[in-house]
Amino acid sequence: MQNQTIPKASIERLTLYLRRLERLHVAGQKTISSSALGEALGLTDAQVRKDLTYFGQFGHPGIGYNIAELVPKLREILGLDRLWNVALVGVGNLGRALLHYKGLREQGFEIVAIFDQDPEKVGDRVNGLIVESSEELAFTIEKLDIELGLICVPAEAAQDVANALAETGIKGILNFAPFSIFVPERISLCSVDLALELEQLSFQVIRKTPNLEHRAS
Amino acid sequence: MQNQTIPKASIERLTLYLRRLERLHVAGQKTISSSALGEALGLTDAQVRKDLTYFGQFGHPGIGYNIAELVPKLREILGLDRLWNVALVGVGNLGRALLHYKGLREQGFEIVAIFDQDPEKVGDRVNGLIVESSEELAFTIEKLDIELGLICVPAEAAQDVANALAETGIKGILNFAPFSIFVPERISLCSVDLALELEQLSFQVIRKTPNLEHRAS
Repeated sequence: MQNQTIPKASIERLTLYLRRLERLHVAGQKTISSSALGEALGLTDAQVRKDLTYFGQFGHPGIGYNIAELVPKLREILGLDRLWNVALVGVGNLGRALLHYKGLREQGFEIVAIFDQDPEKVGDRVNGLIVESSEELAFTIEKLDIELGLICVPAEAAQDVANALAETGIKGILNFAPFSIFVPERISLCSVDLALELEQLSFQVIRKTPNLEHRAS
Repeated sequence: MQNQTIPKASIERLTLYLRRLERLHVAGQKTISSSALGEALGLTDAQVRKDLTYFGQFGHPGIGYNIAELVPKLREILGLDRLWNVALVGVGNLGRALLHYKGLREQGFEIVAIFDQDPEKVGDRVNGLIVESSEELAFTIEKLDIELGLICVPAEAAQDVANALAETGIKGILNFAPFSIFVPERISLCSVDLALELEQLSFQVIRKTPNLEHRAS
């Protein structure tokens, strides 16, 4: 089982399956078929089975999936059976939004340090944390055993922040800046491009609206 | 050419190709091979050709892609050859971050109306726009010919906002709330789940770190 061979979309769906299963688990449901699990997410039973097969054999013939058994397995696969200490760099509106986003902590991601290069922000208290100078990055990341970093700075500062993070022991970076950054091979990198998400939406709207439909050349 | 047959990942990569090509175009480059286009994005030439073939025949044998020709075609396919009027519902930190996010306007997405249900926020001016009451949603969306909506409210309010938007002529919704909303078939829906992005990252970090590696059962 190699990371490279699992489609990104299957990994994304894994988190969606997990959320659905957790809700059913809380509601007291014991088992679910692949078709029922897929239905709520608009997927076929074949797709559900294929996605889960990348990670192990979880189904029971004639019964389906045992929810109480599958939930912890999926949490383990996704690294959600543990806590992650997270550093956030760039305490602007987006950084503040992430600091207040309850979903992160619920999934085991705790922002434990926040940084900004603006001297006017350093020392401010935001959501219980004191904004530190970017110069403290390496020291604090080591001290607090921080493994993941969130880059929430403007595009023009993103690569500098990535370089500074790369000099620490950080293991993964989630980049929100609208700029493609480069990091050393040993660091995992994911990017969230908010304009890109809107472009996916406009593409879908055009496809769905007959009078706007694009014809391939 | 059906929307359903094109992998989501190919559509996402289309926007990445476009950004890369636009940068090269500005720098004066005339043509590019599929391998050179893929290299900068960590993709094989075969993947680039396969992705683009979903949308048309753009390559010239022995020359590669004509950049000045391909850029407007990709912009048209993605619906970026026009302006989109966008409504934003929920003027909290995330809403404010999106209002200040320069990348949206550059790609043709203009937030022209902002709404909040908090009476204390209604009437405030944010980034040149006046916060309107959610009760004005239908009226303003029709008046300003708004086609896309951004939901930036807390999870518990997201479905109510989606229902209100569904009663207008809105064509697409981008949901930032950490909650799966339902909309009528005629409306396109994309979701950005910020915790989900971090889960993708933690999955990658675990796979990359030998001592944390998950073994499939």
